[in-house]
This record gives sequence, C-alpha cells and structure tokens, in this order.
Amino acid sequence: MSTLLESYAAGRWFRAADEGEPLLDAATGEEVARISSRGLDVGAMVAYARRTGGPAVRALTFHERAALLKALAKHLLKRKEELYALSVRTGATSRDTAIDVDGGIGTLFSYASKGVRELPNDTVFLDGGLERLGKGGTFVGQHLYTSRPGVAVQINAFNFPVWGMLEKLAPAFLAGLPSIVKPASQTAYLTELAVRMIIESGILPEGALQLLAGSAGGLLDELTVQDSVAFTGSAHTAGILRRHPNVLDGGVVLGVEADSLNCSVLGPDVRADDPEFDLFIKGVVTEMTVKAGQKCTAIRRVLVPSAMAGQVEEALAARLAKVSVGDPRNPDVRMGALAGLAQREEVRKAVEALRASADVVYGEPAGGALLDGDATRGAFMTPLLLRARPGATEPHDVEPFGPVSTVLAYDGLDEAVALAARGRGSLVASVATHDPEVARSVVLGLAPWHGRVLVLDRDDAKESTGHGSPLPVLVHGGPGRAGGGEELGGIRGVLHHMQRTAVQASPDLLTAVTGRWTTGAARAASDVHPFRKSLAELRIGDTIASAPRTVTREDIERFAEFTGDTFYAHTDPEAAARNPLFGGIVAHGYLVVSLAAGLFVDPAPGPVLANFGVDALRFLTPVKAGDGIAVTLTVKQITPRSNADYGEVRWDAVVTNQEGQPVATYDVLTLVAKTWDGDAR
Amino acid sequence: MSTLLESYAAGRWFRAADEGEPLLDAATGEEVARISSRGLDVGAMVAYARRTGGPAVRALTFHERAALLKALAKHLLKRKEELYALSVRTGATSRDTAIDVDGGIGTLFSYASKGVRELPNDTVFLDGGLERLGKGGTFVGQHLYTSRPGVAVQINAFNFPVWGMLEKLAPAFLAGLPSIVKPASQTAYLTELAVRMIIESGILPEGALQLLAGSAGGLLDELTVQDSVAFTGSAHTAGILRRHPNVLDGGVVLGVEADSLNCSVLGPDVRADDPEFDLFIKGVVTEMTVKAGQKCTAIRRVLVPSAMAGQVEEALAARLAKVSVGDPRNPDVRMGALAGLAQREEVRKAVEALRASADVVYGEPAGGALLDGDATRGAFMTPLLLRARPGATEPHDVEPFGPVSTVLAYDGLDEAVALAARGRGSLVASVATHDPEVARSVVLGLAPWHGRVLVLDRDDAKESTGHGSPLPVLVHGGPGRAGGGEELGGIRGVLHHMQRTAVQASPDLLTAVTGRWTTGAARAASDVHPFRKSLAELRIGDTIASAPRTVTREDIERFAEFTGDTFYAHTDPEAAARNPLFGGIVAHGYLVVSLAAGLFVDPAPGPVLANFGVDALRFLTPVKAGDGIAVTLTVKQITPRSNADYGEVRWDAVVTNQEGQPVATYDVLTLVAKTWDGDAR
Repeated sequence: MSTLLESYAAGRWFRAADEGEPLLDAATGEEVARISSRGLDVGAMVAYARRTGGPAVRALTFHERAALLKALAKHLLKRKEELYALSVRTGATSRDTAIDVDGGIGTLFSYASKGVRELPNDTVFLDGGLERLGKGGTFVGQHLYTSRPGVAVQINAFNFPVWGMLEKLAPAFLAGLPSIVKPASQTAYLTELAVRMIIESGILPEGALQLLAGSAGGLLDELTVQDSVAFTGSAHTAGILRRHPNVLDGGVVLGVEADSLNCSVLGPDVRADDPEFDLFIKGVVTEMTVKAGQKCTAIRRVLVPSAMAGQVEEALAARLAKVSVGDPRNPDVRMGALAGLAQREEVRKAVEALRASADVVYGEPAGGALLDGDATRGAFMTPLLLRARPGATEPHDVEPFGPVSTVLAYDGLDEAVALAARGRGSLVASVATHDPEVARSVVLGLAPWHGRVLVLDRDDAKESTGHGSPLPVLVHGGPGRAGGGEELGGIRGVLHHMQRTAVQASPDLLTAVTGRWTTGAARAASDVHPFRKSLAELRIGDTIASAPRTVTREDIERFAEFTGDTFYAHTDPEAAARNPLFGGIVAHGYLVVSLAAGLFVDPAPGPVLANFGVDALRFLTPVKAGDGIAVTLTVKQITPRSNADYGEVRWDAVVTNQEGQPVATYDVLTLVAKTWDGDAR
Repeated sequence: MSTLLESYAAGRWFRAADEGEPLLDAATGEEVARISSRGLDVGAMVAYARRTGGPAVRALTFHERAALLKALAKHLLKRKEELYALSVRTGATSRDTAIDVDGGIGTLFSYASKGVRELPNDTVFLDGGLERLGKGGTFVGQHLYTSRPGVAVQINAFNFPVWGMLEKLAPAFLAGLPSIVKPASQTAYLTELAVRMIIESGILPEGALQLLAGSAGGLLDELTVQDSVAFTGSAHTAGILRRHPNVLDGGVVLGVEADSLNCSVLGPDVRADDPEFDLFIKGVVTEMTVKAGQKCTAIRRVLVPSAMAGQVEEALAARLAKVSVGDPRNPDVRMGALAGLAQREEVRKAVEALRASADVVYGEPAGGALLDGDATRGAFMTPLLLRARPGATEPHDVEPFGPVSTVLAYDGLDEAVALAARGRGSLVASVATHDPEVARSVVLGLAPWHGRVLVLDRDDAKESTGHGSPLPVLVHGGPGRAGGGEELGGIRGVLHHMQRTAVQASPDLLTAVTGRWTTGAARAASDVHPFRKSLAELRIGDTIASAPRTVTREDIERFAEFTGDTFYAHTDPEAAARNPLFGGIVAHGYLVVSLAAGLFVDPAPGPVLANFGVDALRFLTPVKAGDGIAVTLTVKQITPRSNADYGEVRWDAVVTNQEGQPVATYDVLTLVAKTWDGDAR
C-alpha cells in the first residue's frame, strides 16, 4: 500500500486513523498515495491559526512578510526537481508542470517584490488621500486597511496543486493572515510535498500555514466574521459553500473563482494571411491542450466571423493533428492525461451535451490514437473541436473541462460581444486584432463580463504570456458564472484580505493612528536641521521652516535666460497681462521649487543621501516679482529598507508667499542613511 | 381617503388597481397616504432600465453625469421646504429632517464635485499604474473599470426616505447605471415626493430613475449577472435576499448595510473634568435621541472604564432628562416619534430582551411624560439608558432600534476592543480620547470590526460631524453583522457598481482601448509644436522630441549659486565622490527638469495657458557635468472641463542622457485653451 498523506495541523503532522482512499496516477492508474482526514480536529486547526499563526504573522511588517515570501520562493526553487518528479503522476507534461511549479514560485517572487515596493514598512496600509471634513482643517478623514484577526481558508482545485496553493497563500500571508490549505484530493500528494518543504524550511512563522489533506467536513462550521474562504472549483461546489449558514448569516467572506466558458474572438479585420490569424490559431490550440484543457481559463468558445469559420476550423484541425497524446513521461508527448478516469467521464458527458447543438469538426469523441500510454488505465483523451449550429445554447452553458472547444460564428462586433456575454461572466477573453478601433470596441464590450481581456497582435505576440495564464500582477477572477471573486492583481489581492475603515480624527491623532504625518498636525521644530538626523533619529513631524526669500524680476529673467524657458508669462509683460490665469509676469514653477530647495537644503555631507523624486507638485498661487517665498518641510513618512543601509523619507513641502498663501505643495522624496557618524566623515 | 402613492415605472406614473394599505402619521396616527404596487409589471421596469435608462446614462461621460447630479442637487434645494413639510409626518423634528433632506442633497453635491475632480471626462476609469509584462515593453497590462450593462436596484430603510435614496442613486448614476428605487413603505410618501420632483425636473435621462412604491415581490426574479441590489435594513431581510437563487447562483451582486450594535468608547485617559468627557456624553445623548434613535449608526453600546461607569451614567441621565419628547410640530420638542406603533413595539420587545442582563439606569420602560402629542396614537418613546450586568450577552446581540443605549464597563484597552468585537462587525465606533497612544491602540484594534471609526477630542470637536453621520466622502458599511457592504466613500462607492478588468495588450492597442497614451506606444511627431495646438486639435500621442543640451559644470555651479541649493553633491567634488549613490558631482534634479522645460517650451502666447503641476517625478540616473540631456514630451491624457473654456492636458515627459538612458520621468500638467485663434492675439 502507498503512503497515507498527512495533514499539518496545530503544529504537528497528523496521520488519519484509517487506511484512506487511494489516489491514482493519471497515466498509469497505479496508486500514488492514500488520503484521509478521519479523526482530524479541524476546530483545533482554526483555533491554532487564530491563537498562534495570526498574531505571529501580524507582528511582522509588510516588508518583513515580503522578505519571508522571497526566502520561501528561493527555497522551493532549489527543490523544484522533486516537485517535477512527482507532478508527472498528475498526468502533467513538463510544460504543464512549469505552469504549476514555476508559476507558483514566480507568484511568490512577485508578491515579495510588490510587498516591498508598493506597501509601507508597517502593518497599516493607507488608502487614498486625506479628506478634509471641515473648513478649519481640524477634522479630517483617512481610509486605511488593517489585517483581519481571522483565518484564511483556501480550498483549491485539482489542476494546479502547487500554483493553486501559492497564489492564494502569498497575498493572504502578506495581508497578515494565517492560512489553512485544503487541496483537492485527486492531486493532494503534490500539494502535501510542497507544504512539507515549506514547513521543513522553517521560514514561515509557526501556525501561518496548515494543511488539511482529505475531507474538509466541518471546517466552515468553525469560521466566523473575521474569517474568509477562497474557493477555486466548480460552480456546483461554490453553490454549496454559498449556502453555508456561516457565509449567509455569519459574516464569513467567501471568494469564488469557478470554471467559466471563456472565449477567444478573431477580429473582423483579420485575414488568413495576417500574423494575427496564426496567433489566434496557436492560442486556441495551446489553450485546448495545455494541462489537457483542464484550466479554468482555457478557451471553450472560439468566436469567428462567419466568413472565416471554415478557414479557422481547417487551421485548427491541422494544428491539432500534430498534438501527440500519451504518457507524460515520454518526452515526445505533447499532451498528457486528464487528472483521472472520473474527470474524463465528466468531460465525455459534457461533450455529449454539447453535441445537442454542435457537431464534431475534428477529433474522435470515443478517443483517438495515443502516442504512448495505457489506454485502459490512463485517463487519456484526444482533442476535440466542435462547431455550433445556429442558435446553439449548450456551448454557452456546458463546460467540458478537457481538450474540447467549440467554434461559433458571428456577424459584426455587437454579435461577438453578445455571444461572449452569453457565458454569463467569464474569467478571461482574448481578441486577435491589429485594428485600434476593433480593439477598443471589443475590449470595452467584453470588459464588464470578464476579469481579464487579452489583446493579441503582431506587436505583443513575442512577449505575450497567452490567454490562459493568470499573472500575479493582474486580477484573476470574473463576474457571474466565473464566481464573482477576485484574486491576485498585485496588492489588490492583498487588500481583499484586509478591512477598509474610514478614520475621522484631528490631524494630531490621525498622525498617531496612521504613523504618517497629516496636514494640520503639529510640526516639531528642532534645534538640529532634520537633514542632519539619521533615519534612526528622524521622527514623524520633524520640521524645518525656512527664512523667506524675495523673488525678483531679475531672478525670473535670469532663470529664463539660464534654462531657456522663455515662456511669455515669464518674459513678456504685455502678453503675460493677457493670460487669463496670471494677469502679468509670474515666476516659473520650476524656479519656485528650485529656490525652495535652496531654502531648505543643508549643504554639508550628512545622512540625507539624495533626492530621488517629487510627488504631487501643484502650483496653487502665481508668484510675482517682489513676492517673498518661504518653505516648510516636514517629515511625513519614514520607510526603512530592510536590504539597504538607508531608507526612504517622504517630506511634506509647502511653499508660501508673504501673505501666507500656499504657492506650491508637494512631497519631496529622499534617501536617508540609517545611521550617521558625522565625525567619521 | 388619502392619496394612493404612485410608482414611476417604464416612463409613466403607475397607479395600483386596489386601494392600498394606509400609511399613518407617526405622531398623530392620521392617514398620510396609501400604498400598493398591485398590477405593477416589475419585469417591464427592469427591461426599461436596461433598454432605455442604461444606454442613455452610459452615453454620458463621468463629467456629464456629475453635472446632472449637481443640477439635481440645486433643483431639490429649491424645493426643499416641501420636503420638510411632509417629513414631519414621519415623526421627524427639523433637526432630523436636515439630516435626511439636506444630507441627501449634500451627497449629490459631493458626488458631483468628486466626479469632476477625480474621474476623467470619459466613460472608462483606469485603476492603478501600467504593469510591464515583458522585458521588451511590447506587452503591458492595465486595470480599468467599465460600467456594468445592468440595473441597480436600491431597497431602502424607512428612517431616511430622502438621504437613503440619494446616497445610493448618486454613485450608481455616476457609475453609469439606471436605478430602480424601492423605499420602505412606512415613509414612502416622502421618497415619492422627492422622486416626483426629480422626474418633473427632466434633469436625468429618461429611464435613469424608476420608483417602486409598494411590495417588491418578483423584482429579484428579474435580475441577472450584471444587475445589483443595494439593501439597507434588517439583518433578517438581508438574509432573505441572500438566499434568493439569483443572488446565490445567478451572479446578482448584493450589497447589504444592516443595523449594527455600534459602540462608543470613553478612553481610559479621560477624567470627568476633561473636555473629552463632555464630548463623549453629548455624543451618546445625540445618537440616542436624533431620529429617536432610529439610525443604523446610532450608539447602542457605551463602553466606559469600570471606574468611570458611575459618573458616566449620572452625566448621561442628567442630560437625557433635558430631552423633551413629543409631536415634532412643536418647536420646543427635541425628540419626535418613532416611525410607527409597530416599530415602537419592536423596540419595546428588544428592551425586554436586554433586561435579561441589563438594568434600567434612566428612563421609564413603560413610557415617560411627553411635552406634547397624542400618547395613544403617536409612536412616542422616551429615552432609556441601561447598565449591563457583568458577563451580559444581550447588549451585544439585541438591537433596540430606538432611543435606547446600554452602558458596559471595561478594564483595560484590550477588553474594550474585545467587547466592541462582540458586536460581530459594526458600521461605526467612536472613541473619546486625547492620548495619541490610546488613539492608535484603540483605533487599530477596532478597525477590522468597523467601516468607520471616529476619534473625538477637544481639537476636532468643533468641526466634528459626529459619530452617527455617514459622509459621502467616507465609506459607509461594516463587516459581519453590519452586512459586509460598502457604500459612499467618494469614488470608491462608484467603482463598486463597475467591473474591474485587467487588459493585456501592446502599448499601441492599449492606448486605443483606454484613450490614454501608454509608455511604449507610437508617438506622433507633428510639424506644428504641440503647444501651438488647442485642446480641439491636440491628439493623444502628439509629441515633441527636443534637441539635446549639454549640462556643464558651470551650469551646476551657477544653479547652486542662483538657487542657494549648495548641497555638497553639486558643489564639493571630494564629498560628492564619497556619496554612495553619485560618486562625484551631479546636477541638481531641479536643474534637470528646469532645463528640460527650457527644451520643450514654446515661448510665444498660444493655447497652453499654464503648467499647474507635476506628478510622479523620479530621478533615475544622475546627470554629470558634460552629459547631454534631451526631453520627449507626449500628450498622455486630455480632459476638457465642461465649465471652462480650457481643459487639462497631461504630458508624459522623459528626459534622457546622451546614451539614451532615462534620467528623469514625470507627468507635466497643463491647462490648454479649447480653441485658439492665433491671429486674434
């Protein structure tokens, strides 16, 4: 008998009391492992995540969590051959495994990178700008995101046992949540191996990741208002989850990513000898055959202009004929097996249903020839292309989760969009076109029905990642039938795990709450110029208020001559007087900020290493000759970098004129050394 | 018999065939109107919204929709006395009506303003920055929001018949959706009057707003994947809506804002003679008595340090004793009636339930004295303050939707947060404190459980809008028991009505789809300098590529001397050589952008009126003496202003050095005249 898979629960590996159910090799039918969760205390898992994992993860800043994700990615990368070796038993070719294993590791790297670049080195994320709630500026509002003190339950599908786990784990972990992962049984042995590698590495805090191998019975009963469930799988199972009382009335947040009837549209501008025609054909065949079509993003509906339908079918058939099917251990095999015989049976039933309104154009429904492999015990299926009859309904409703697509003819872009919409919401659509107007019209028509739309043309083909590949930086999910959920999308995927709250307070207390200086809050004038303070010494609110400087007509002329910016508003009094906004000569905006820098800078070497940028510069009041300007610079945000001996300091800058009116406001971005020993330099 | 309310359905006012049910004056018990929707074809309403209203609204840009909201606000403001006159029949005092009517009109103004300032003059909203998906830059991603081609159904509560309608209508309309409004019957006559004013004004496109007065039976059966329901009301009704098959399996998006057990926390730092103590007491009494406590944001739980409980109860009782209750027509009445006798009966039942674990400290459960009004037919109720016994559970579970609050004692901030969390998710919490550490600790503890948290102290008290007031610019909603929905929040509330989609394309086709120039897309060099083109003539992609200019050591010295920015990296070769990022003298960043302006500007008077700002300036490569810089300026986005004879043009600016490396990237923001007649000037 093969190994019984274990769950990682409440800090230890748990082995079920019974023998478990066998899990079979997709290509050979041999037993790979057994699975059971009998006797597993799921309540204890949830309690452990709440008590141990959650607090440990939330004690880390976003940057610290990101660093752990990066370490994890590197660790898995080192051991990926082991994952590849086991992955073949799921029926996957090497190409299929790359999507699962390398794709999963890439997702970790991407979140590690985004976490450092787009989140603060803190535990609170500020959303949007400050809202001034009263004219006096004493009452202000700020939206912020905090981590939910709950548990993220992740229920994954059988087709991507590694990527499916990691793409949910990464954003949840970055958001500060402990995860309980429940893989689909069919391929759980691969997830179990990956989790074992993660646990053995000791990289994640204890309790941040638990594995439930086997049935999840009773798990949802343990969840409450701060907990969430992210589910990938069938619409049927999604419906069962949606009906759980803790979801309906208990405040458990449920995200669903369900199979969908994705389409690919051949633009009406494309002729058979255009590059886009070939790209379209290749795209459809790739999506039909990668993972043997077992991808929730695969192309199920092929929408083509009526006049092109014949040529498209011929080209698809010719290309499909080259796809060798068989045991994925054979390097000449292009398409491996379905996950199992039960899955194949479901696809066959779906094909039967489709044939009520569609005819086979290519392939043998009963099964074509294999290059290699056990046709009896292996879950092989050869590609099948159908053509919908006019008015067909099944192709919009029935999803064959295998290497099966249906060609549908359309007349005019409106019909193409209308046919796509009959899928009632899908994960992804693609369009092959090189016409800008077709692109705009089709993409904006498809967008409300899809989470992602790919436009494929000769210009992006070389770098395109293809119709079926969710990317960590782009949202993955879709409305309606596709489940209505949203995963990934960079930081968007992190924020879905957090609670957005509007905080109203005085500027001083808002500064205390957010850790970021708020306009209107106290400024701390210090004896020492803040440019002389290291990152360790700087405090939010540290301020320098400069002496005033008069801007003369000569300054303006000199600046115009020096820079070459002789715009009439700075040089020609009569023309400037006619300008509706100025009514006379004004100083260059760039002159104002350049003089302001001269007013606030501390020239000697010190901890401030560089000004690397300026954000949100607005010129609010024109500066005229004779005006006196002064600048106030205040430490707004401090972001230490964990991988460098300096960090970023964001300064609030306000330039005012002699009447105290704001002339310009902006943020100055500097790099400041973590420590500074003045004597040593 | 009084008037039978009409529905506005499919372009005409519909009158039910039967006599309808009577709606009674809250204070006098007299019949105000009758209501019935018998015979109303709700399917035709949905079809009309889809066919007529939706396309008409979506044909407008965000700015055009915003302008109509502003016109609507002005129109209702003119007729607000009529709304006030009718509002008194709901039991509302003038102060109560101001919240409903003026609050509703203010919400329209706010969305009109945000729509113009924060949305483009277009129909598509871009979310976040460009994602580079390939190293070559030929394949890029951009998230965007498009309008759902569906219907927004809005089911409102009885307590805010005007605000409740307008706060849902404004963001939905701005998002491009037609609305079907279904008010609670009890006060539907006031909503009907407001809708009648709107329809009579002819301001909104036909079909953009329909009114369903009466039962909504069958309405949800008509909805499908692109439709949404926004519901405000009881958790019980929310549960029924959540169980509708079109919500469970049909892809209808349901947003819920339900009653919640909001709390107010007295900070442990506050003593009885601190200003925050009085502010806290006033806040609690206001929330207990405004709208007779019939607000989903009202304070139900008063959390105070154990040692302060006695003083708090005394102070609350003293202040409540001054609240005169009675017919709202009497100007001396401070608190009016509940909406009706049935509502009062529910509150009385809730009080009975609360008394299982709480004792009355102030007020008479059977009803105290009225200043004025018919004690038999009017739905009056005098304020009631309870004190929870140790370990009480009812105050966390039972919501008395009237002038009733319960005091709960806590020891330590952790217990305060834990008690607040026992509400299982609420709309809003408030904290009275003047201590920054208390503020941070309590707010971040409460945040995951709340949609809004107010910090009240001496500094913001004067301008504070109070615990119970949702503001259009801040999110309104809360997790868990509060429904899990989110309304308002400025543009956040608009985007909830739209679909977010990731678009992947080549830069050229992405530019075509979004209408905004994308890095990597074609640049159109034109014979005419783009600064000589009016807004009408400018095109996305119009470009000026400047000649190069050498930056000399003398330029750097001169700039340092001129501006006073003598930072050592620009002036001291030895110190600059030690800078880890520069390794030698570098040009000032401000010098680089100033010279760049000199390179791209066209000096003569023309359509470009002013440079009003710069966004996202980043210095990427240091510029050293002898380097040659050039700048490329490309039209990125054009935003005509509907209320001015100019618009905003956003230019993409890239400064490169002699090796073609980017030195600085930024967006230049200019105001450009819509038309320009060069000869005339």
